[in-house]
Amino acid sequence: MELAMVGLGRMGANMAERLVRGGHRVVGSDPSPEARAKAADKGIEPAESLAAAIEALPSPRIVWLMVPAGDLVDKLLAELETLLAADDVVIDGGNSRYQDSLRRAERAGERGLHFVDVGTSGGVWGLAEGYSMMIGGEDDVVDSLTPLFETLAPAADKGWGHVGPAGAGHFTKMVHNGIEYGLMQAYAEGFAIMSKKAEFGVDLHQVAEIWRYGSVVRSWLLDLTADALDKNPSLEGIAPYVSDSGEGRWTVAEALELDVSAPVITLSLLERLRSREENSFGDKLLAAMRNEFGGHAIKSD
Amino acid sequence: MELAMVGLGRMGANMAERLVRGGHRVVGSDPSPEARAKAADKGIEPAESLAAAIEALPSPRIVWLMVPAGDLVDKLLAELETLLAADDVVIDGGNSRYQDSLRRAERAGERGLHFVDVGTSGGVWGLAEGYSMMIGGEDDVVDSLTPLFETLAPAADKGWGHVGPAGAGHFTKMVHNGIEYGLMQAYAEGFAIMSKKAEFGVDLHQVAEIWRYGSVVRSWLLDLTADALDKNPSLEGIAPYVSDSGEGRWTVAEALELDVSAPVITLSLLERLRSREENSFGDKLLAAMRNEFGGHAIKSD
Amino acid sequence: MELAMVGLGRMGANMAERLVRGGHRVVGSDPSPEARAKAADKGIEPAESLAAAIEALPSPRIVWLMVPAGDLVDKLLAELETLLAADDVVIDGGNSRYQDSLRRAERAGERGLHFVDVGTSGGVWGLAEGYSMMIGGEDDVVDSLTPLFETLAPAADKGWGHVGPAGAGHFTKMVHNGIEYGLMQAYAEGFAIMSKKAEFGVDLHQVAEIWRYGSVVRSWLLDLTADALDKNPSLEGIAPYVSDSGEGRWTVAEALELDVSAPVITLSLLERLRSREENSFGDKLLAAMRNEFGGHAIKSD
Amino acid sequence: MELAMVGLGRMGANMAERLVRGGHRVVGSDPSPEARAKAADKGIEPAESLAAAIEALPSPRIVWLMVPAGDLVDKLLAELETLLAADDVVIDGGNSRYQDSLRRAERAGERGLHFVDVGTSGGVWGLAEGYSMMIGGEDDVVDSLTPLFETLAPAADKGWGHVGPAGAGHFTKMVHNGIEYGLMQAYAEGFAIMSKKAEFGVDLHQVAEIWRYGSVVRSWLLDLTADALDKNPSLEGIAPYVSDSGEGRWTVAEALELDVSAPVITLSLLERLRSREENSFGDKLLAAMRNEFGGHAIKSD
Repeated sequence: MELAMVGLGRMGANMAERLVRGGHRVVGSDPSPEARAKAADKGIEPAESLAAAIEALPSPRIVWLMVPAGDLVDKLLAELETLLAADDVVIDGGNSRYQDSLRRAERAGERGLHFVDVGTSGGVWGLAEGYSMMIGGEDDVVDSLTPLFETLAPAADKGWGHVGPAGAGHFTKMVHNGIEYGLMQAYAEGFAIMSKKAEFGVDLHQVAEIWRYGSVVRSWLLDLTADALDKNPSLEGIAPYVSDSGEGRWTVAEALELDVSAPVITLSLLERLRSREENSFGDKLLAAMRNEFGGHAIKSD
Repeated sequence: MELAMVGLGRMGANMAERLVRGGHRVVGSDPSPEARAKAADKGIEPAESLAAAIEALPSPRIVWLMVPAGDLVDKLLAELETLLAADDVVIDGGNSRYQDSLRRAERAGERGLHFVDVGTSGGVWGLAEGYSMMIGGEDDVVDSLTPLFETLAPAADKGWGHVGPAGAGHFTKMVHNGIEYGLMQAYAEGFAIMSKKAEFGVDLHQVAEIWRYGSVVRSWLLDLTADALDKNPSLEGIAPYVSDSGEGRWTVAEALELDVSAPVITLSLLERLRSREENSFGDKLLAAMRNEFGGHAIKSD
Repeated sequence: MELAMVGLGRMGANMAERLVRGGHRVVGSDPSPEARAKAADKGIEPAESLAAAIEALPSPRIVWLMVPAGDLVDKLLAELETLLAADDVVIDGGNSRYQDSLRRAERAGERGLHFVDVGTSGGVWGLAEGYSMMIGGEDDVVDSLTPLFETLAPAADKGWGHVGPAGAGHFTKMVHNGIEYGLMQAYAEGFAIMSKKAEFGVDLHQVAEIWRYGSVVRSWLLDLTADALDKNPSLEGIAPYVSDSGEGRWTVAEALELDVSAPVITLSLLERLRSREENSFGDKLLAAMRNEFGGHAIKSD
Repeated sequence: MELAMVGLGRMGANMAERLVRGGHRVVGSDPSPEARAKAADKGIEPAESLAAAIEALPSPRIVWLMVPAGDLVDKLLAELETLLAADDVVIDGGNSRYQDSLRRAERAGERGLHFVDVGTSGGVWGLAEGYSMMIGGEDDVVDSLTPLFETLAPAADKGWGHVGPAGAGHFTKMVHNGIEYGLMQAYAEGFAIMSKKAEFGVDLHQVAEIWRYGSVVRSWLLDLTADALDKNPSLEGIAPYVSDSGEGRWTVAEALELDVSAPVITLSLLERLRSREENSFGDKLLAAMRNEFGGHAIKSD
């Protein structure tokens, strides 16, 4: 198939490359000349502008957005409205909030365009191993894109699926990331417990390797954990500072909205916030209260 | 009544003083000459040794232990076994684990002694305001001690009660402290949220004062919070380091033992552990994992 | 002072009555003839309509809204825009979300009106004991309302305060309710632990009474708990079903927005959701997973 | 090698069978004639008694216990003390608490025996796929057992390791199970959120299948989840009742002992307790409190 990949950052460039390797024609658009040059080396046709990328495609056009979630998506969609024609397809493969995708799909539909949301998992490993894709959109439109998904996925019949109407793809991806937070935190806690148990002197990398085969907790995240512990067994030099990129908190908000109690996903998010708190006011207040009622000593800052 | 107070630290000395003020005769025992001298100034009769204290009392003897929980209680009980006679009464007013009190009561009973466990709340404010006491022990023995409890309590008929057999007093006090952890953490979180909301510039001390009257969250801990925020509105110089003295974790262990889900008490304890963790291994591992799968940047230590 | 109380439900009628008792003139508006008749018995002047209530007041008019949070507030504000004139004051004393109050204050200001948000705590006990009020609004406007707050509060100088600009009142009340959730859950867990400990046969009502005096956990919520356990010691006939009315989840959302980790307030909310879940899909899935990997038996529905 | 397998239940019989398939000679002991007969069909030599099993082995004897954790292990060890001689080896492959293994290893050592603890993961799938084994014990003793581990593991060089001195094997397995609780709960919550989102009508089995390939959350537990959802998409007939078999709560206790905050593992355990609570006293009390302060309606049982 032929399509434009808008956004040639780490994710977009890798996906475009995997598509090219799979025999598709990919026109690539990105404001950065370096990103375009690098993409050209991989067989992606660089376009100087979004308009140029669209012009380079036959009708109906397929445009795959792979850019950071948020305003940029709306900005690009507004520009695309002026460039595209009826029956063209816009795919948002980024980590957009599903409520945004619902809104964008409705607006696209009003203009005769088709909007498809593709929740994409796989990270930096996707180029080699394939991407897991949860797809939302109209049946016939998603069907028509099948060759793309078959190429991007780990196998033609594995790791991708049309999960529902527009919005459902990003919704499912959001929950995927919520689960991811919980899984990561579970491993982190377990390894932290072992690392604190000095008397056994357990080799954490060895344990991770043992568990990779035959154990109940084997997983891809454990493979990565083993890899990280192999490179840096004591995690020296790594700050205990855990970022979050939005989908965890959206999942927590969604669970509340649906009245579903999701304590582990929620606490995983809170733990990340906690990792970034410095000089917690709450903890200072607890220390002050203990001093008030019990005369317990307060540690100085 | 006449009794020996064993342990003239902050709690023991204050309780002895309140008993003396209430017309009781208190012989005080403590290894520290300073503590004994200070107690003597308050009308407590200092005794050079535990044996001397016992000798100074009429039969049946009443001995109130007010010492740190743990081995010291067992050590003193062993010594008391050699000094006391049938029908003498030993009261443990400290924060002993209730399982220890069950064991100690059984052993005391085998020697003809009576064991009473008094869970005591009130902290440094008890001298002035009276102590809240949860009492475990045999009916007639606890009855016979009524005048002591009436004096120590905030009022003769308020703030104390015989809650069950030996062990029940410390059990109830343990749960009291578990609840205390939860209450404290709830306030701490609320004030932390307000302190972070820079745009409203809310005066935390003022809010605490408002809430003290008429609000649903009014409480003694809030009174103390208001006091702490009055003295030090930004809690400057206080380390965000929260100790725990055992009863919180015993409550958590008990809840698990009883198969009762107590998430808030449990999380309150975990938050204290968290406040003392430096350079969390778990958080470092989370950062390392994010780097592994997503190429997300790691902050350096 | 003279004012209109709009909404003569439980809260509005009680507050109007307390104002009348304090010597203020209150015109009462409510769509229900019964509510108006009942209010009239308490010395509140019933008005047939909102317009009639406004007309009955001297300028500048003071209108106190005491209605359920949400669309009704906006509807009433829209109607009031047509009835009020420059420098009139609208007070929202309900449990509105503070972001709504920010928006409403801005709009009111554009029309020359003054908007004041009063977070009000005290529930059904406020009539007798006074209300705790956290007030947001312009300095001089809030100052001019002082006599009302002095009457409504537990004492002229206690239980109320001007905490910041418009929005700050409802923000502070929101956090108050978040804390309330945490406090309630802490007590609930503690009493649940004691109720499960059959061997001690602790009398929960007695324990609550003991703790009311001198203990660290004494509070107004504990007073109510003692009262509830007095009336119904085993809580027979009460379903384990806990509602929530919004402010808890707003507090959780706010904490996330501010990147403050508030595990206890958050878990208190989740526990309420959990209390209302029937036939939890998550728990079924856990049982199914255990069967898958370990052959563990599944209980039938 | 030659060894006795004591306990021919699901785990013991499967492990014995895998050993036989791997060319080892296994004498099997179990009080159940049916279990012995079934084992005989797989090439395991049935022994009428523990004594008979020991007698059938050459010196030094190797005895592998695969029985439920707890008193039975101590009972068998006491019997083995009378049957074994210096330098014989006892392996506990069950889910014993590691503190018990420390104690048992010490006692065995005093009698000249060698104790090895093998934390074993893999469940009912271990026969076909191999077991993941975390091994604690003396270096040379564990070394001498290498052929057994190479046979039982998924591959000779994969899925097993000598992690430390006696006790370290069961300690590591305990943490493994704690992590397992967290992972399971994370998936359960995620699928529960999706199942509640009626508007997207997401097919949960399809989503699980998609995620199995290329996604960040792919894991063996997800494979099992997909399998469970394939067989029973709505989990109909499965009670939302989740048992726990000890290691989760031991992990929580250990984390507290080590002062490591492990909120997700802890909450995963609490959620299981919660799934088994009927008519929660805490929730009833919350409903009663809300009625007390706010007049909120109580649902009847």
